Amino acid sequence: MPSPKSPSHFADRLFERMEKLNTRVCVGLDPEPSRFPQKLLEKYGLATALRQGLDRPSFEKAASCILEFNKMVIDAVCDFAAAVKPQSAHYERFGSFGIRALHETAMYAREKGLPVILDVKRNDIGSTAEKYASAYLGADSGPGCAAVPSDAVTVNPYLGVDGIKPFVELCAKHGKGIFVLVKTSNPSSADIQDLSLREGGCTLVQHVASLVSGWGSGVIGKCGYSAVGAVVGATHPKDMQALRERMPESVFLLPGYGAQGAKAEDVRHAFKDGLGALVASSRAVIYPCPPETHDFQQKIKDTARSMRDDLNRVVCR
Amino acid sequence: MPSPKSPSHFADRLFERMEKLNTRVCVGLDPEPSRFPQKLLEKYGLATALRQGLDRPSFEKAASCILEFNKMVIDAVCDFAAAVKPQSAHYERFGSFGIRALHETAMYAREKGLPVILDVKRNDIGSTAEKYASAYLGADSGPGCAAVPSDAVTVNPYLGVDGIKPFVELCAKHGKGIFVLVKTSNPSSADIQDLSLREGGCTLVQHVASLVSGWGSGVIGKCGYSAVGAVVGATHPKDMQALRERMPESVFLLPGYGAQGAKAEDVRHAFKDGLGALVASSRAVIYPCPPETHDFQQKIKDTARSMRDDLNRVVCR
Repeated sequence: MPSPKSPSHFADRLFERMEKLNTRVCVGLDPEPSRFPQKLLEKYGLATALRQGLDRPSFEKAASCILEFNKMVIDAVCDFAAAVKPQSAHYERFGSFGIRALHETAMYAREKGLPVILDVKRNDIGSTAEKYASAYLGADSGPGCAAVPSDAVTVNPYLGVDGIKPFVELCAKHGKGIFVLVKTSNPSSADIQDLSLREGGCTLVQHVASLVSGWGSGVIGKCGYSAVGAVVGATHPKDMQALRERMPESVFLLPGYGAQGAKAEDVRHAFKDGLGALVASSRAVIYPCPPETHDFQQKIKDTARSMRDDLNRVVCR
Repeated sequence: MPSPKSPSHFADRLFERMEKLNTRVCVGLDPEPSRFPQKLLEKYGLATALRQGLDRPSFEKAASCILEFNKMVIDAVCDFAAAVKPQSAHYERFGSFGIRALHETAMYAREKGLPVILDVKRNDIGSTAEKYASAYLGADSGPGCAAVPSDAVTVNPYLGVDGIKPFVELCAKHGKGIFVLVKTSNPSSADIQDLSLREGGCTLVQHVASLVSGWGSGVIGKCGYSAVGAVVGATHPKDMQALRERMPESVFLLPGYGAQGAKAEDVRHAFKDGLGALVASSRAVIYPCPPETHDFQQKIKDTARSMRDDLNRVVCR
């Protein structure tokens, strides 16, 4: 939450934390109860229900269990993570209870000083994009406040600038950020994103990258980076340098490290002088061991620290 | 909700209703409290709060007010509408309370026999798309049930087939549908969607249309239409025929009629023998008059009936 003392631009706040903690790690908070510590599931009476598939009456318990799990993760990673990234589907599937858990997770993370990047991948036509923007990038409190307070959200570019502008306006107003999907980490990202365009001799990804650079040109922070960042899959190392050249002022959010197979070397070219990008990992960090493991939280802590060190080895000066 | 008697395929169920009621109207449920009837706002003590901008303590009241408004709209349009389409941002902005109102709205609409198309425009990598799919296209009740029960959802194609497949699987399993964004109704849809591709001599929109046709080829109903439909803005009449040719088996969801300026004539080529498409309108139907108007509900009813008749005049045999 921006205080009078902290810089008000999203990238300035983020980089200040990254430098202070010497970290480029973004921990994904993607709660999957079936992978939670066994003891936690038992505490909430979910162990049996999960085997059958959760029904609606169990959503409230599942959401409470998720919140406790997330707090445990946040406590474990807050010294090593530059930010956390709750992925919204994992909360939406538990309806209103899940959204309450998401809200409380975001509040808790921010209390601990962790910026929250809500991974919602939203977009719509202009008048509706305004609603999404105010839901997630509205003021932290008071009139016009956000439904789930966050520091940044992910957005989808398919609808063009109409669907982006309302988000950028709130970035400027409230010191928030967005990360536009440019090149996603999944195998079939090629289906659409890698298509070659007739004009300009580039691919759709490269064209979107140029749009993103333009969309962010009016919201540059003191650090020289824009409030409009880009999602670029760490699983595509070959694209990294060309995309960095097209988006010199965008903070890169790089998913795909860990469970999806990307390595520290794969993201090297996203960074400039050890800044400018965040590497996201969820499953590999928050489920580092089987549910029965005794010291689950310590294992999460160790994994987050190792990830930080692994990245620093490659991307720092 | 599919009962043993009703056809289990989404398009079969939808078309049965369209033929029975002789309607192609889809009413968007996009609640904007500032446009609600004055008396309703006063009942919930929201008239003053709205002028200042709603704060978090007022979300619960706003959500209750939304639910009452939606029920009033559903009662007014259920004889003229083939389906309703709640747009998720309008609920998400009120956090968990908004999602509860969305859930109860969907339940109420389905009780009245109205299919619910949740306009969420979701997408993500495969493992996460599974979570979104189960959140909205899961079973109606019991283990593995959806968080918000619906008949269909809108999805974004930018991530390729990985992000579509989990939805299609649940379409097949539970008799649900999806509408993939192909050509959106907003002016800047051209930014990305109208780009010309180097290979195939087509635009991105046309390429996505061909993908959509392929994605839906395994889930065709008795009516000859697929569970994988397409969102095509009614605001682009010139594209309509070419897109219908590329997606002969897709149900078209056509937003843009009414407030966005499209006319009945603009959607003529989306239909085949009076079936195959739904025309969506939200603001023009549900806010047909100023908040002070005495007979707000009657005006909604009249507008929905006029829209039905206006479309039938043009698209029916």
